[in-house]
Amino acid sequence: MHLFSFLLVFILGSVHLYGVVAVIQTYDVEEIKERHRRSVSTDRRSEIRDISPEDRPSCPPGQIFPSNRVNSTLRLRDLREEMRKIGIDAYIIPSEDAHQSEYTSPYDQRRKFICGLSGSAGYAIVTMANAALWTDGRYFLQAEAEMDCNWILMKRGEKGVPSSTEWLISVLEGIEHATVGSYPYLLGSRSWTNYEKELSKNNITLVKTNEDLVGNIWTSGRPSFPNSPINALPYKFAGRHWQEKMADMHISMKTKEADAMVVTGLDETAWLLNLRASDIPFTPVFFSYVIVDRKKNQTILYIKNHNTKLTANPTEEETTQKLYEHLNTGTDGSCSGKPGYCVEVREYDPVAVTDKVSSVVEYSERVWISPICSYAFYSLIPKGKLLQENTAISVQKARKNPIERLGMIKSHVRDAVALISFVARLEKEVKAGVRWTELSAADKLTEYRGKQMYNRGLSFETISSSGSNGAIIHYAPSNLTDKEITTDDVYLLDSGGQYLDGTTDVTRTFHFGSPTDFQKECYTLVLKGYIDLANVKFMKMSFGPYGRELDILTRRHLWNSGLDYRHGTGHGIGMYLGVHEGPARIGMTGKQPSYDHPIEEGQFFSDEPGYYEDGSFGMRVESIMEVKKFNLKYKFRNSVFLGFELVTLVPHEPNLIKYEMLSKDQIDWLNTYHKKVQDTIGPLLINTNREAYDWMELRTRKITYAVSAAPKEILSLLIILLSFTLVFVS
Amino acid sequence: MHLFSFLLVFILGSVHLYGVVAVIQTYDVEEIKERHRRSVSTDRRSEIRDISPEDRPSCPPGQIFPSNRVNSTLRLRDLREEMRKIGIDAYIIPSEDAHQSEYTSPYDQRRKFICGLSGSAGYAIVTMANAALWTDGRYFLQAEAEMDCNWILMKRGEKGVPSSTEWLISVLEGIEHATVGSYPYLLGSRSWTNYEKELSKNNITLVKTNEDLVGNIWTSGRPSFPNSPINALPYKFAGRHWQEKMADMHISMKTKEADAMVVTGLDETAWLLNLRASDIPFTPVFFSYVIVDRKKNQTILYIKNHNTKLTANPTEEETTQKLYEHLNTGTDGSCSGKPGYCVEVREYDPVAVTDKVSSVVEYSERVWISPICSYAFYSLIPKGKLLQENTAISVQKARKNPIERLGMIKSHVRDAVALISFVARLEKEVKAGVRWTELSAADKLTEYRGKQMYNRGLSFETISSSGSNGAIIHYAPSNLTDKEITTDDVYLLDSGGQYLDGTTDVTRTFHFGSPTDFQKECYTLVLKGYIDLANVKFMKMSFGPYGRELDILTRRHLWNSGLDYRHGTGHGIGMYLGVHEGPARIGMTGKQPSYDHPIEEGQFFSDEPGYYEDGSFGMRVESIMEVKKFNLKYKFRNSVFLGFELVTLVPHEPNLIKYEMLSKDQIDWLNTYHKKVQDTIGPLLINTNREAYDWMELRTRKITYAVSAAPKEILSLLIILLSFTLVFVS
Repeated sequence: MHLFSFLLVFILGSVHLYGVVAVIQTYDVEEIKERHRRSVSTDRRSEIRDISPEDRPSCPPGQIFPSNRVNSTLRLRDLREEMRKIGIDAYIIPSEDAHQSEYTSPYDQRRKFICGLSGSAGYAIVTMANAALWTDGRYFLQAEAEMDCNWILMKRGEKGVPSSTEWLISVLEGIEHATVGSYPYLLGSRSWTNYEKELSKNNITLVKTNEDLVGNIWTSGRPSFPNSPINALPYKFAGRHWQEKMADMHISMKTKEADAMVVTGLDETAWLLNLRASDIPFTPVFFSYVIVDRKKNQTILYIKNHNTKLTANPTEEETTQKLYEHLNTGTDGSCSGKPGYCVEVREYDPVAVTDKVSSVVEYSERVWISPICSYAFYSLIPKGKLLQENTAISVQKARKNPIERLGMIKSHVRDAVALISFVARLEKEVKAGVRWTELSAADKLTEYRGKQMYNRGLSFETISSSGSNGAIIHYAPSNLTDKEITTDDVYLLDSGGQYLDGTTDVTRTFHFGSPTDFQKECYTLVLKGYIDLANVKFMKMSFGPYGRELDILTRRHLWNSGLDYRHGTGHGIGMYLGVHEGPARIGMTGKQPSYDHPIEEGQFFSDEPGYYEDGSFGMRVESIMEVKKFNLKYKFRNSVFLGFELVTLVPHEPNLIKYEMLSKDQIDWLNTYHKKVQDTIGPLLINTNREAYDWMELRTRKITYAVSAAPKEILSLLIILLSFTLVFVS
Repeated sequence: MHLFSFLLVFILGSVHLYGVVAVIQTYDVEEIKERHRRSVSTDRRSEIRDISPEDRPSCPPGQIFPSNRVNSTLRLRDLREEMRKIGIDAYIIPSEDAHQSEYTSPYDQRRKFICGLSGSAGYAIVTMANAALWTDGRYFLQAEAEMDCNWILMKRGEKGVPSSTEWLISVLEGIEHATVGSYPYLLGSRSWTNYEKELSKNNITLVKTNEDLVGNIWTSGRPSFPNSPINALPYKFAGRHWQEKMADMHISMKTKEADAMVVTGLDETAWLLNLRASDIPFTPVFFSYVIVDRKKNQTILYIKNHNTKLTANPTEEETTQKLYEHLNTGTDGSCSGKPGYCVEVREYDPVAVTDKVSSVVEYSERVWISPICSYAFYSLIPKGKLLQENTAISVQKARKNPIERLGMIKSHVRDAVALISFVARLEKEVKAGVRWTELSAADKLTEYRGKQMYNRGLSFETISSSGSNGAIIHYAPSNLTDKEITTDDVYLLDSGGQYLDGTTDVTRTFHFGSPTDFQKECYTLVLKGYIDLANVKFMKMSFGPYGRELDILTRRHLWNSGLDYRHGTGHGIGMYLGVHEGPARIGMTGKQPSYDHPIEEGQFFSDEPGYYEDGSFGMRVESIMEVKKFNLKYKFRNSVFLGFELVTLVPHEPNLIKYEMLSKDQIDWLNTYHKKVQDTIGPLLINTNREAYDWMELRTRKITYAVSAAPKEILSLLIILLSFTLVFVS
């Protein structure tokens, strides 16, 4: 799937503050300083536009309540009342939940509640007089349609649009001792500290509110707190007992001299304890905290309704163990009398967790917490005791174990069968004039995936985009935008599934008619880069290479032609977990944060360059690749060489390839890959779905470099000689 | 020239502490922590060998004074007496001077004085009982030959060799309150703080000595302090008046909120004030400090014998101004009554500079100093007032102005004429059986360069290496190692000149006979990478790309075959200044220090991949490239695209190229480049040196891709048809 992970970094990092001008132009402390220095300078002031709700096309002066929108007037009145009670001048409402999750449960969609925008990215700030929402290009239309006229729409990345800090500084100007509040369990630690620093320069104080003010006023119609059943993930999928993982954690913590680790990421607790659930859309996790306390040799897991869940029967057919058995815990969640590793299970209650963390911090010398955590927990740990870097969980989770690797391979095979079967049908029917739209295609593909063994739904909302919709990088079809899929347009399909043994994410771009020469040129440039990355081998070094050092391999073909794609090139992916997983990634990151991580054996990455022509088309090719050892022609000083092997096995669109633009190495790679698709997927289709088999076979035929890429001089000579020969023969 | 700059980073950064295992495997805080955690662990202890002088082949037990070596016994006795006086248990003697210069003047070669090793890299540590020297592979032989048997030779990078910290910890074990001393004007700030941190973990204190202990005992035979004449660099070469540069500094300092800047790098003061001299070999600089004080609007330059130099007549034929006129200073160095910018000139005296910096720090809120500075000055600035990052000088110096760019181009043309003329002769004579050696070739080439307009000597010691000597990456020939250049060996020639209008650095690898297939394969892999980097275009972004993001382009061809070169790919280069210049560079840097810098228009870099086969041959190709804007086929959202243009104009060795391994793009690039060599250098040779012209012409002929790289299938078909045709015709 497209580069949500890159966005993720922003969202969790500093997006609230600075906005995403371009995904690959990531933030940097100096740049931030500089930008904010400018923010108070006259120069920047004159650049910034004064934006009001009346700038919105659907909100001409005087209009307040278009009938088809969420009416935010009462909600804002209530929220301001709450703000007045505690004496703050502005309140920041982020999109994230308390665990800084990429996708949130309906219960946690406070920002949607307050302003109406249902899109996944955006944050709101409410003052006594104003209410503003910042979002990025993919949600401009939707925000315009969904928000009523109380709201200012701040289009991030557009010229003259103030950052949220700039806006706060300007609207709070003149207020003495101005204070901005936010609920520290929801705002990320990095966002918080950035806001705090910049606001304080302008004598504005950022304060923690004791309560979630939006939660306070969201008294009716609020979805209930997620409470899905938790199931153990059997060893045959997890590949490692949680006790083994726990032993590894203790070693890592010892190495880092950390006495305790506070785990706030939901995929981290799920991975560590081999548990899965469905509290959050697209990601099989559950609300939880874990504290690993080395001094007391204690591990505590906080989950909702722990008493019921501990003894509940498994709801997942592959699971036989009850939770308390799996965790070697008493049915009451206590560890008394339990030999070996035992996880103490307590009720999920932020206050209780906070108190516990505070007491652990007290007797610990060093406490480890992820850079991706809420400010609430971050602020419990004094600087002298803080170890804020990628947790050992995130690093070890990224390096899949042999069983996980095999599961990833096998689930991708099943996923390929579903995708190939569906697109073979789609292409045939579109060509035959059957009406398919972005939405109906996405829905049908979900059905195809659902029939595959071990499928547990999608790993993200399908991006099914036809023609100009494809140029919106993070597009997902809605009733507002749904377009027909035709033989005249480029069709981009980015989708993925969750399986008990793996998570998939694949993009293919099609053209069922006659693409233009420019479209073919762009697609081939994208493909060249995709192949070059997939084909590279690199030396295992003590530190590196890093993903930022490989990105140029995909990007350079577009750059050499003066083109670009404004997102990263690859993200990590979980094993029946998040479709985006850190800490490593492939993308240029500027002066990147120190939380980046080298590329290592057993990690899986997407390889997904693209090209987007505004208002016209979008194209992207994406496969998931495993990082593995390779034996090469030579072996420099006994070095270990790593490289990528694709686990995604879906043919590429021949209709869009200009073969003469591919090098011999690229043609060879494509032939080898397509041969593997034939050999692996072919047998699974040939007897069950001949139509899909034929579709696949046609698209994976060997291309001869001689014919595709021979120099023109030679071809001309050939033709002359051939003619000669024919003349003489005749 | 080879990647001294990368080494430089180490030397100035942390080499003293950790040693260079591999140049590209740069240091990283975590790795360091880990390594030192291990250093006190039993595991690492068992790995470390106990090394003594008797491990040296030329120092069998009992032998102390081979007659042909520097006798260090008395020197060590004197030094230990000094150490005893101030009560320290060990003393660290780095290679650098007080300005952390890459090359040092004979006056500053304290490490050579104490141990005898004349090579450029290495540092010594003396305890009451032991004396040890750490150096890298290029100086193992030389150290063995030059040091007497008082010295332990620590071969950095070899297994079991302790780092200097590990060694100190082990030899000082058992001494209560052990102290290690070093002279803070000589040890870099980063090395110092690293030592301090690691030693303190083992209860060893690092202390500043008030005096340079080696200087104290070096009472006879010490070369005098450098005192070369200082000349103004005319505007026609510098391209910008120093007053303009000073105005820029004030702006940059204001932006960074720095009240003062302490300039310690010799190339920084030379560039800022448009002055050149010859205090240091290979780099036209002079001993100096500059303090730019924004609060007092004062600039102070400290130089040796300032009174004499201010009024001395120019010694450089291109210079007409006396120093005091150039600097708009009174003949006594004062600025009283001077309108506009004036540089106050005072006597070079570290104590006076230290006092002045201390007083500036007192009334300043923020003081800017380079990461590359001695601990003495770094430690004068309290953390709260410290801005330690690349100075605005280093950043602006790297971006050449239009006149400097033109000078770089023109000086490289002259340099190419010299190099081509020399190698044409060398090849002819070697083939004719005339005896040439590495040293005689290097000397003769220096003569050829010397005859070129504006030449002011070499920019570094020529690397002239035949056969197996070429595999020593940083090799420079000496009487001990001098080898004949023959038709049987690969010959690597890496050299450069200083010109009033530019600094050059070029490597070409030759084979005057019949190279092996493996040699050709390696050379072609190197060449492919070199071309791919030279040919890449990249988008100008707010941050990036960085050199670390481009390195893979050169390295991947070798990596894909399981080969590598253990150095970076490109360094910056000065304009009639240092041959290695920061802050940007092209190389993988692991978790790189934050002092790295993006690639920007007007910077110049080397592009120099290589391959080294131990004991057999070494090959490297190196050209200097200018970073400039390019108009490409498309223009993505009005982006600016940058790329490289080579200013080095010397043909490549056709004898070593396997053309069938080059892609069409690579062949095209080579043809375009060689055409430019013909067009630019040809007219300068055709009437004056026909032999050199012919040599050049033969090596720059157009290669036809059709013939060189046509697929075999097509060629076979062609032959068959041709035969057919012939048969019929006949």
